Amino acid sequence: MTDRLQRLREALEEPLLVTDQVNVKYLTGFNSDNVALLVEPERVRLFTDFRYAEGARGTVKDVEVVETKRYVYADVAPMLSGRVGFEAAVVSYANYEALRGGPAELVPRAGVVEQLRAVKEDGELEAIRKAAEISDEAYERLSRERFIGRTEQELAWLMEQLLHECGGERLSFDVAIGSGPNGAFPHADPTDRKIDAGELVIVDCGTTVQGYASDCTRTFATGSLPAEVKEAYAVCREAQEAALGGVRAGAFGADVDAIARRRIDASQFKGLFGHGLGHGVGMRIHEAPTLRPESKDVLEPGNVVTVEPGIYMPGKGGIRIEDLVVVTDGDPEVLTHFSKDLISVE
Amino acid sequence: MTDRLQRLREALEEPLLVTDQVNVKYLTGFNSDNVALLVEPERVRLFTDFRYAEGARGTVKDVEVVETKRYVYADVAPMLSGRVGFEAAVVSYANYEALRGGPAELVPRAGVVEQLRAVKEDGELEAIRKAAEISDEAYERLSRERFIGRTEQELAWLMEQLLHECGGERLSFDVAIGSGPNGAFPHADPTDRKIDAGELVIVDCGTTVQGYASDCTRTFATGSLPAEVKEAYAVCREAQEAALGGVRAGAFGADVDAIARRRIDASQFKGLFGHGLGHGVGMRIHEAPTLRPESKDVLEPGNVVTVEPGIYMPGKGGIRIEDLVVVTDGDPEVLTHFSKDLISVE
Repeated sequence: MTDRLQRLREALEEPLLVTDQVNVKYLTGFNSDNVALLVEPERVRLFTDFRYAEGARGTVKDVEVVETKRYVYADVAPMLSGRVGFEAAVVSYANYEALRGGPAELVPRAGVVEQLRAVKEDGELEAIRKAAEISDEAYERLSRERFIGRTEQELAWLMEQLLHECGGERLSFDVAIGSGPNGAFPHADPTDRKIDAGELVIVDCGTTVQGYASDCTRTFATGSLPAEVKEAYAVCREAQEAALGGVRAGAFGADVDAIARRRIDASQFKGLFGHGLGHGVGMRIHEAPTLRPESKDVLEPGNVVTVEPGIYMPGKGGIRIEDLVVVTDGDPEVLTHFSKDLISVE
Repeated sequence: MTDRLQRLREALEEPLLVTDQVNVKYLTGFNSDNVALLVEPERVRLFTDFRYAEGARGTVKDVEVVETKRYVYADVAPMLSGRVGFEAAVVSYANYEALRGGPAELVPRAGVVEQLRAVKEDGELEAIRKAAEISDEAYERLSRERFIGRTEQELAWLMEQLLHECGGERLSFDVAIGSGPNGAFPHADPTDRKIDAGELVIVDCGTTVQGYASDCTRTFATGSLPAEVKEAYAVCREAQEAALGGVRAGAFGADVDAIARRRIDASQFKGLFGHGLGHGVGMRIHEAPTLRPESKDVLEPGNVVTVEPGIYMPGKGGIRIEDLVVVTDGDPEVLTHFSKDLISVE
């Protein structure tokens, strides 16, 4: 029995059927896209089909492995009884219908394993620190490369190669590049637009180590910029650093978001910070807790979160500055060390 | 109104709420992870939050764009009425509960848009042909590279770079490499195992063009192999080519699978083909129709499917040979042209 399974059992009001692939991997070490884990007070069973059952037996300890047909939910349904929780945000309506074919009384539950995952263990923090170091090094190398004349897509591929060369396992998510006016869209995919002189370039990326992600954004300048744009950069950086100062155990995610938002909204760039301040990072690139206006989360020691305000100026460009930090009882441990100065590249 | 939306309307018994991201992109061209499309007889509405609404208005034609709060399902629920279909395999139980808060009578539906997507238009076929050409070229280049002494992970990264250099947009899925005994697991991720002389190496990968995927597997030999292994290769290739001969409009997916399975099960390698024969490919790497023992699908002209039997010999290694083909009324159009001979690499 892993400590994680033990902690989960202590948190449960009734047995829980865990079907999120990442949650099962977190609890057992076993990774499959066709799996269910039934956690009961006296017993833990892992259900998976013939393709994976042998591998599962070799991976999990103190967990019974039960081989099912290809459609796990239909096979598991008759084996459930009494009250059984299920992951309501993960199970599709069709799979819920299959489970409902069995005798159990199904109880929708949300975020149970995710709450455990939100507080990282030492080994998890080590992996994330390493992933952040790799992205620091990749940003250093990127800043010595030519930007002007390359397309956003070429720059994204270059960064992917740098992350790999620096030791990253795989991208946390597709490298995002927003140059010039494209930077004004927070979720822009890299395009074939050629980067020009005298504009902003947002680079947002991360890599994984042992399956744990890093996440970092920096905004570069390709030569000299209008005064208004430099002012926006200064405001965004101030907002980012002020918000970092508010990240500590016991703080509300909504309040930390408000620190950055107030600073931007008190400037001439009011209303141009069009997304939440940050999110948890771990086995997934977006996980608990969240730092945004409508968040109900309270930060705990061991949370790993991003702090990433942005200013998006339609037609002119965008700025985003993002650090990845560990929440402690005092100041956060900042994991991303690449300079936050407005670096000029060629 | 796109032709696709028109065809969908003709197929509907009641209005359909489309929430699968790829299905919405297929129907409207608009791509967002927070979107719902309500297709009614006289009206089509696209719901998305403030982050995407402006982009949506610029993308979609003849579709009303309605801006919602961040949680689209909760905002859409009160706007539904009468009988409304929803995508039961896509909508989570939690989102279903949010929809149920509105006045509509919800009807679970499965695979409606997926059935349209399964029959490719000319433009879609062009993109897939191009993606397959790129992977052909990448396999050619890979076959001239050194295998022995490289780890599976290094070979996977090399193939990723080759696919990119040959013009691929992004990987269809993470490059899969199974060398020596690791090849005996159909779903093995690349490891740090060093490839040795005198063994089999399975390489399974693809790339996208305009968002459409290719998929191809070849198995290489690093020098001379035992007679039994060469025989297994010959059996797998015969099974693959026999199954290709059965791919045509009107054939049942289960029957095409059986052609390959019978051939392998009639040999000394009986029982070692431990997965389905193939699957549809398009905007997703796995889509309709399926070629497997339990498939109910009937092939139609314009389907694009893989034909990929394998023989997995525990402790010894694995073989898989996969082509991507277009279903026609006659012989299939094979899109993957790299040699299926057992190529010896160094």
